[in-house]
Amino acid sequence: MGSKKFRSPSDSAVEATHLVLPQDTNALGTAFGGKIMEWMDIAAAVAAGRHVAGPVVTVAVDDMHFSQPIRLGDVVVIHASVNHTGRTSMEVGVKVDREDSATLRREHCLSGYFTFVGVDKNGRPIPIPQLTPQTDSEKRRYENAELRRQHRLNQLQNNSVGK
Amino acid sequence: MGSKKFRSPSDSAVEATHLVLPQDTNALGTAFGGKIMEWMDIAAAVAAGRHVAGPVVTVAVDDMHFSQPIRLGDVVVIHASVNHTGRTSMEVGVKVDREDSATLRREHCLSGYFTFVGVDKNGRPIPIPQLTPQTDSEKRRYENAELRRQHRLNQLQNNSVGK
Amino acid sequence: MGSKKFRSPSDSAVEATHLVLPQDTNALGTAFGGKIMEWMDIAAAVAAGRHVAGPVVTVAVDDMHFSQPIRLGDVVVIHASVNHTGRTSMEVGVKVDREDSATLRREHCLSGYFTFVGVDKNGRPIPIPQLTPQTDSEKRRYENAELRRQHRLNQLQNNSVGK
Amino acid sequence: MGSKKFRSPSDSAVEATHLVLPQDTNALGTAFGGKIMEWMDIAAAVAAGRHVAGPVVTVAVDDMHFSQPIRLGDVVVIHASVNHTGRTSMEVGVKVDREDSATLRREHCLSGYFTFVGVDKNGRPIPIPQLTPQTDSEKRRYENAELRRQHRLNQLQNNSVGK
Amino acid sequence: MGSKKFRSPSDSAVEATHLVLPQDTNALGTAFGGKIMEWMDIAAAVAAGRHVAGPVVTVAVDDMHFSQPIRLGDVVVIHASVNHTGRTSMEVGVKVDREDSATLRREHCLSGYFTFVGVDKNGRPIPIPQLTPQTDSEKRRYENAELRRQHRLNQLQNNSVGK
Amino acid sequence: MGSKKFRSPSDSAVEATHLVLPQDTNALGTAFGGKIMEWMDIAAAVAAGRHVAGPVVTVAVDDMHFSQPIRLGDVVVIHASVNHTGRTSMEVGVKVDREDSATLRREHCLSGYFTFVGVDKNGRPIPIPQLTPQTDSEKRRYENAELRRQHRLNQLQNNSVGK
Repeated sequence: MGSKKFRSPSDSAVEATHLVLPQDTNALGTAFGGKIMEWMDIAAAVAAGRHVAGPVVTVAVDDMHFSQPIRLGDVVVIHASVNHTGRTSMEVGVKVDREDSATLRREHCLSGYFTFVGVDKNGRPIPIPQLTPQTDSEKRRYENAELRRQHRLNQLQNNSVGK
Repeated sequence: MGSKKFRSPSDSAVEATHLVLPQDTNALGTAFGGKIMEWMDIAAAVAAGRHVAGPVVTVAVDDMHFSQPIRLGDVVVIHASVNHTGRTSMEVGVKVDREDSATLRREHCLSGYFTFVGVDKNGRPIPIPQLTPQTDSEKRRYENAELRRQHRLNQLQNNSVGK
Repeated sequence: MGSKKFRSPSDSAVEATHLVLPQDTNALGTAFGGKIMEWMDIAAAVAAGRHVAGPVVTVAVDDMHFSQPIRLGDVVVIHASVNHTGRTSMEVGVKVDREDSATLRREHCLSGYFTFVGVDKNGRPIPIPQLTPQTDSEKRRYENAELRRQHRLNQLQNNSVGK
Repeated sequence: MGSKKFRSPSDSAVEATHLVLPQDTNALGTAFGGKIMEWMDIAAAVAAGRHVAGPVVTVAVDDMHFSQPIRLGDVVVIHASVNHTGRTSMEVGVKVDREDSATLRREHCLSGYFTFVGVDKNGRPIPIPQLTPQTDSEKRRYENAELRRQHRLNQLQNNSVGK
Repeated sequence: MGSKKFRSPSDSAVEATHLVLPQDTNALGTAFGGKIMEWMDIAAAVAAGRHVAGPVVTVAVDDMHFSQPIRLGDVVVIHASVNHTGRTSMEVGVKVDREDSATLRREHCLSGYFTFVGVDKNGRPIPIPQLTPQTDSEKRRYENAELRRQHRLNQLQNNSVGK
Repeated sequence: MGSKKFRSPSDSAVEATHLVLPQDTNALGTAFGGKIMEWMDIAAAVAAGRHVAGPVVTVAVDDMHFSQPIRLGDVVVIHASVNHTGRTSMEVGVKVDREDSATLRREHCLSGYFTFVGVDKNGRPIPIPQLTPQTDSEKRRYENAELRRQHRLNQLQNNSVGK
């Protein structure tokens, strides 16, 4: 990627489309949570991998809220884009919509925030390119991500203390 | 979908992004053909399902050419869009690119043409909305698809005769 | 389950043991995040399902932190137990350890909090049995879960406002 | 395989039997196209691999026609055999039948033609043993494959021109 | 199947061919036992299902001996045929060979005996057609299966007593 | 594991919990035999691997009896523990219970005996630590395993002779 150091969220944004098959469902006939998280993790990892142009590993997942069930036969559309970068880590926001196969109406089902670090060949964290949010919406997402990052660091500290 | 009868290819176009994991590879460390076809079939089925706003079934696959191997760790980007419609059937073109995870360079790996019919609840073919190609590229794809359709019908006839 | 209305965390606690096979790994040879989350969701859903003695659906996942990579060939041991109950929802804590297959040493790899609601046959939330934490550790987990619940509700509100 | 240079189709023919489980179906309760293609690709790859006694890669798939749906619980019987050889590539014909589990009646569901090349350790095409069709049916299949090969080469040329 | 009551082993014999992909292996790079057993169970269930022309359920598995490891890239050929019938149950013998992809040499890897019962729509055992072994080898297998059946019944009794 | 040479069954005992999803079932809506065997093999391999603190391979499976069907939505609880050790091989007993998701009642569904050998880096059998059964139940299981071992060796001999 040469000397280019700063990149916008749209440079690495990901769209992924899936179809909910019986193998993706639970006994209630809805997509089971673990499968959706698997799809989200892959979309998020691709966005993060594009941003750093190299391997990344998942270090945290936060604030995932399921608001609508996803059903057998639904089309699932996932959007992932980098919200924020630190020195070695970055947050990727992932949004999941379902599309009804008969009405084609799309509704938001869940969102989540995935944190990745870029790693070298030995799996050690390395500095990553900085994100330069461009649009108002990208800037707002950057600021919200900064707040979540503070919360995340606090949590880690509390967990260590509380042990 | 109300009274809207004519639709353009972009109304139903699909983008799907996958990451090649060990479970998608063969003993040579490249994505195995059957898995790529599975991903193509799903993307094509979503495009066809959007065009008819209902269930569809695969009836033919043609002219699939693998020009580049896809490797473990590659990002795979699939584009599917409706090329042509008949009375009850439609052809969907599917293009598969790989994206190198280190250089982010994208290269074309294979294409294929999937034919679907729209079906009712009993699985019987039903008339489908007609496609209205808009751009020059969409019109060219429509015409090429018409040629393939002739070839397909000839093949079916030859196969029946040759039995 | 008769008239018994109050239950302790140990009544529904789950232990799940997995072996990391090539199909569970990414191109780096470590267990990929999405697969681990799938295993966590299943263990958490079993704990929640036992607590309510009926179907449950995932509504949120929080504060999942990956501290150690999990490798091909590792044994993965997952513990899930109900931390806290609200009127219709409950939080399940999930802890994931890896066990080195040569040294048998076990180390903590990640944790996460899954929130479920109990549902009736039509998928509507229903009141669930209350949790009665018994040990000191169970009581501490109950209180920490109460704090996360406040954070979760705040987040939901912020997200609605911020849209 | 020593000095033997010419081989008949029956030397490498493959029979594969599968049972359609829920994980192989779509929302309509029939086997989904992508799964069947995956099974076909594996059977075809085994036949091609036997013919060259070494690794092969899929380069094309043509004229696949689905004439009958395959249902949950059906037994699927796949036959694959080499139809034709060029210098480095070969065409394998694949036939898929379903067997009703109650009546045991077998009916033809789809066919397709898979083209493979034999490759060396670096994935480069290598000359392959020539096929010697023996029976009338093998000779007819050889000739039909020759026609498809011409069509395939024309298609490739058209696609290059049309770009 | 009309009035035909007696059937020979060859009427229901099954051949299944698989290719060992990374998703079928363990951390040692060999096919993992559980996957091979899954393939054996499916082949055996198809043979049993053909014999009774209806649904069957696995009731026992015996004397499975793994003599050779099966490796990534191997072709696996499975043969299953009914060895013996009782009033409602039948034993199916399953033989698994590996085929080296470079030398095409085939060697026996493991065998096992699967017992099934035919069931009605409510899952209750029903009388099944009797087997009529024809060849000497079929007759020998029938007699050996009769001995295993005695052993199996003894085991069941011992287990009940020993509890 | 240093100088410790003798180990009790409880040192390596395994508990594994699964949820029966549609992808684990057959056309009858019950867990299909091959999947359950896969889960059993993994639990057994973990117990054996813990006992020897190194890689193991499955060499035999015996006396597996399915007494109760396992249904979609059931929780499956698997217990595996080492019953007996020889010089290089060991027998692991595996017990599978289903738990009804509404009543939480648990019932025994099947058991089986898996034999493993410990192997070195080249896959050759190596001497393994001896088992020291402690409780009465562990001692009884040790003795029953010794009887099965005799039967297994006889079977192997008969099979060689009978060929």
